[in-house]
Amino acid sequence: MFLLHERLAADTAAVCDLALSTVRLMNDRAFPWLILVPRREGVRELTDLSTADRALLMEEIAACETALQALFQPDKLNVGALGNMVPQLHVHVVARFIYDRAWPGPVWGSGAAEAYGAAEREVLLQRLRARLRP
Amino acid sequence: MFLLHERLAADTAAVCDLALSTVRLMNDRAFPWLILVPRREGVRELTDLSTADRALLMEEIAACETALQALFQPDKLNVGALGNMVPQLHVHVVARFIYDRAWPGPVWGSGAAEAYGAAEREVLLQRLRARLRP
Repeated sequence: MFLLHERLAADTAAVCDLALSTVRLMNDRAFPWLILVPRREGVRELTDLSTADRALLMEEIAACETALQALFQPDKLNVGALGNMVPQLHVHVVARFIYDRAWPGPVWGSGAAEAYGAAEREVLLQRLRARLRP
Repeated sequence: MFLLHERLAADTAAVCDLALSTVRLMNDRAFPWLILVPRREGVRELTDLSTADRALLMEEIAACETALQALFQPDKLNVGALGNMVPQLHVHVVARFIYDRAWPGPVWGSGAAEAYGAAEREVLLQRLRARLRP
């Protein structure tokens, strides 16, 4: 059974489910930041997925990039699968700007998250769903 | 024509060429750290690659992970495509240990690289080639 890690659940809001992954929005308004979590049990590394699931995950990463590009026109996209803190496999897809808080460094460990307001988060979630849902 | 970005070339040593990517070893003995660079011109983001190339890249990332797992038994693998400094698309695959310099933070921006000695680097390159070459 697939269960979202409690820390991932606490730090993010549900966007939508794609074929393989559940997509979450990181609750940090400093960066438009999506997290994909493959709905497979006990997976820590990309090598724990099948080749078919890896291909699917790659296309879902690209779909998240395309959505963020359309909504935010970022200067760069950052993609990362680290998992040093949360062992459940999850992939960050982050829109970066040359004026953002962490530029040109990585977002991970770049400081405390700035929570969205409820209304602005809801608008953003709706826009992301409109772009990402098949 | 594919040309490796001069900064990537300066910071790394050639391991081998896979079907899509050239594989490089980061010259930092603090972390067993491979970089894959797809041999495609003018590519910055994963979305600039074709779907077929993205699937190939994903399998080459997995192959690098498998090689690092076999050689180093890391506690975790970190994968990242950032490109905030070097615009040419490149993917980091890094073996992480709970006692390494940056744990549990990211390796990027974690301090100055510790260069390999020539002999130890050559041994490591040979071992990586033996694992990665088809």
